[in-house]
Parts: sequence; structure tokens; C-alpha cells
Amino acid sequence: MNIAIIGTGLIGGSLAISLKEKGFPAKIIGVDKSEQHLKKALEKGFIDQGMPLKEAIANARVIILTVPVDVIQSLLPQILDQVDTQVVMEMGSTKEHILEHVKDHPKRGRLVAMHPMAGTEYSGPDAAIPNLFKGKVMIYCDATDSDEDAFEVAESIVEQLEARTIFMNAKEHDTHTAYVSHISHITSFALALTVLEKEKSQGRIFELASSGFESTVRLAKSSADMWVPIFRQNKENILEVLEEHIKQLQHFHDAIEGGDTSTMNKLIKKSNKIRRILK
Amino acid sequence: MNIAIIGTGLIGGSLAISLKEKGFPAKIIGVDKSEQHLKKALEKGFIDQGMPLKEAIANARVIILTVPVDVIQSLLPQILDQVDTQVVMEMGSTKEHILEHVKDHPKRGRLVAMHPMAGTEYSGPDAAIPNLFKGKVMIYCDATDSDEDAFEVAESIVEQLEARTIFMNAKEHDTHTAYVSHISHITSFALALTVLEKEKSQGRIFELASSGFESTVRLAKSSADMWVPIFRQNKENILEVLEEHIKQLQHFHDAIEGGDTSTMNKLIKKSNKIRRILK
Repeated sequence: MNIAIIGTGLIGGSLAISLKEKGFPAKIIGVDKSEQHLKKALEKGFIDQGMPLKEAIANARVIILTVPVDVIQSLLPQILDQVDTQVVMEMGSTKEHILEHVKDHPKRGRLVAMHPMAGTEYSGPDAAIPNLFKGKVMIYCDATDSDEDAFEVAESIVEQLEARTIFMNAKEHDTHTAYVSHISHITSFALALTVLEKEKSQGRIFELASSGFESTVRLAKSSADMWVPIFRQNKENILEVLEEHIKQLQHFHDAIEGGDTSTMNKLIKKSNKIRRILK
Repeated sequence: MNIAIIGTGLIGGSLAISLKEKGFPAKIIGVDKSEQHLKKALEKGFIDQGMPLKEAIANARVIILTVPVDVIQSLLPQILDQVDTQVVMEMGSTKEHILEHVKDHPKRGRLVAMHPMAGTEYSGPDAAIPNLFKGKVMIYCDATDSDEDAFEVAESIVEQLEARTIFMNAKEHDTHTAYVSHISHITSFALALTVLEKEKSQGRIFELASSGFESTVRLAKSSADMWVPIFRQNKENILEVLEEHIKQLQHFHDAIEGGDTSTMNKLIKKSNKIRRILK
């Protein structure tokens, strides 16, 4: 079968690599607005052919969207307009707005919405790596809105990725990802800005950067093209968690300012409960 | 020579392991207020003998302090009272208060102050690991206040750790560590609290936790016994960076709330400059 991957970057590329490595019987058609990305994807060999979007849709049994969420939202209706029995999979990091946007589309059933909780702080075809999804979580969203046969085709592809699959509705998805993914990016971006600002007056600051610092700030390397649309589409949830987070930081601030050892101790010990969740 | 390590946890234990592995010709005496820690350190074999503090000081050529910074501050004067030509090394994460506290001590010259920019989110003898310091930065602080022969002895030990050494004064040290270490712990603690709070109402939240989330929150496993004294001793610097960080988060908040794509883009692209520093 022909699979068209729209967006040959980190997610699309890593997906293609997994299908190739598993020997999944498919020809991979790459679509990317960047000619350079397409060329790189061909060179790296994870796509078999580059095509313009319209031609790719006409030639593919399955169309997989792995582009930023604003592009998914604007492309989806016109892609669904062009499909008949084909299957469309979208892998965006937000769900409510995207699915709301096509909820009344006559071809809504051909769409299978999912979100792989996998990624790195890098982007583009060079960021594509084998086994990106292995052992990670793949969330299917509003799966009952997909036609059964479309879902089965999507599943046969997702199986190749060796991810753990779970099901959620779009609303639940967007709330949860705000807490366990989107906020982490904002704190990293803000931490990088904080320290870069200080570096201007204290040049040697980064000589000391420890692995702890690196760990909390590495997501600040992430791309604006991907993240600005996520912040726009998941605005309400993100604002809620961001306000809560600023409140928690303010608690620390006040306890440190007041020399309040007992409150500092309590806050840290409470936060240590994260041990239960992380390995 | 006999080396007494006061505090047989992550830092003291890892140091002892490195000396053993390098075949450094020393008997390692462990001192720890926890009998259980001493027993564990003996079992793991990185100390040769446990001793009470006073006896250890009398029997050691070198005394190394690897306990929380409040304990270092309270022990240092009484340890210096008891030394003659011995060498005292302290490895605390803050410097100004500790060194101010002993600046007029007649034995100040026997003290070599340093801070290894190495660690993990774990503590106690079980957290001690080989090569913890390898390739990391060891900061010597106010090194000119140490007697030359004392510094040379300390250096001969530090050399075994294969760290990169740099020199700073105490003030500069405390400013810089607030930015590239202490703040990272506060953001992690606060992020853990934010998400744990939400989990109460949204039980499934951690099913989705991605590696990005884990990366930004793993320091929240760190111990209150170590961090509360650091927050107290480096209060002014930490408050300054924390206030700046909250301000940066507020910028993101306002840009997201106002749907201000251009500002979001600018903030993220500016923060991406951290790529220059991180590998």
C-alpha cells in the first residue's frame, strides 16, 4: 500500500524509519513544504518518493499528518474533501480544536486521531531516529468517531511502532498533556531566558552548568514552529496549569524570603511524592 | 594517609569509591550521624572504618566535609579548632556564608573550599556511584585563603576524580550556582507540586508522562535535608533569580492569554539560544 506522510520531520521521519525497519509492505511518499527536507528524507532513505500534497493524497491508501497543529487544522478539511475510502491519521499534540474543526465533515469517519507521547527537543528530517516510539504511549482520541475499518488500518501501522496504546477523549487529552508535556516546555523556555539574561552581565555562568540544569532546560531547544501553535490551541488548559505553577513558585519564594524552614521542608517533601511516578 | 569523610552519602561515598578505584593510598574513615549509613558504607566497602567525629579528626591527615551546608557551617569552626597541620576540605553547594563564618579563624589556612558540580537526585550511601565527578566541574573557592601545602594535598585528592577544575571567589560562586543549579531544583519541586495537585482530580494524568516531563521534574526527587539549607544560605541570589524566572513565566502567560503569536515566537526563539551552551 502507499502511505503518504505529510511532514518529514522528527515524528514523520521516525515513523517512516520504523515502518522500513519492520519491513512493513508500503511505499512511503513524503510531502513537505520544504524542498530541502524532502531531499534530506530521500537521502536518508526513509521515504521512497517526494510528491506535492494533492498528488500524494490521490496516490495513497493512508495519509498521515505529522506537521505542527495549526497546519493539521488548516489541512484536514481539504484533505478529507479529497478522500473516499482512504484513511487519514493525524498525530498532533492537541486535539479539541482540531477535531472540533472537522466534526461535521462527511468524511470524519475516515480520520483516526492520535498523539504519540514521544519526541525530542530536535526537529526536521535529521532529528528522525529509529525506535522513537518504542515503549512510549500512543493516545487514540475520540476513537469511536472513526470508521471501524479506518481504525483497523491505522492500528496495523501503529502496531509497528511498539508503543503502548491508550484511549481518551479529546478534552481529557488536552487537559492532561497541558500538565505532563506542554507546561514542561514553558518552564524550560522561561528558565533558559532567565539564565541567558543573567549571562549578559556574568559571562562565566555556563561553565558551571550541571547535569541537573541541563535536564531542566533541554526542552528550551524545541522549535517555535511546533510549540506556538500548541500554546494557541491548548490555551485554556495551559493558562490554568501555568497559573498554578506560578503560584507554587511564589510559595517557594515566600518561604525562602521569610526564612520559613518548616514550609520549605513541607513543600519539598510533598513534591518528593513524584518518586512514586517516575522511575 | 588517613582520610576522614564526614557524611557517607552521595558525594562522600562517590568520592570514596573514586579514591578506592584509583588505588589512592589512603585508609578511608567514615563519619556519619546515621549508624545505618555507616553500616551500609562499610558493607559497600567504600569506607574502611567508621568512627565518631572527634576520634576521626584526631586520626586523619585530611578531613573532608560532604554534609548539608548547614551542618558544614556549624561543624567547621569546631573542626578547625581541633586541627593543627591537617587539611580540611569542604564540598558544600554554597560558599559565602560558610567561608564568612570562619574567615577569622586562626586555622582558616588549613581549609580548602570547593564545590563539585556533580550529583544526582538521590542521596545516602546507596546513591554513591563510581565516576560521579568524571568530566564534571570542580570549583575551588577563595583558593588564595588556603595555605599552599593544604591546597596541594587537596589537589592530589581532587585529581583522582578526573573533574575539570576552575577557580572563583565565594560571591561569584553563589551567584552562578543560583542560576545554573539552585533555580533548577525550585522549578522542578514546583512543577511536581503543580502536577501532583492536579492528579487528585484527574487520576490518569501520569499515564501520559513523556520523557520531556520526566526530564524537567526529576530533580523533584531531591532531598529536603540537602536543599532547605542551600535555599537558606543562598537566599538573596535565589530570590533574585526566582523573581526573574516568575517574570519570564508571566511573559509567556500574557502572550498566550492575549494570543500574541509574535511575542511567543520571539520568546521561544530567544530561549533557543541555549543551544549554544548545551550539547
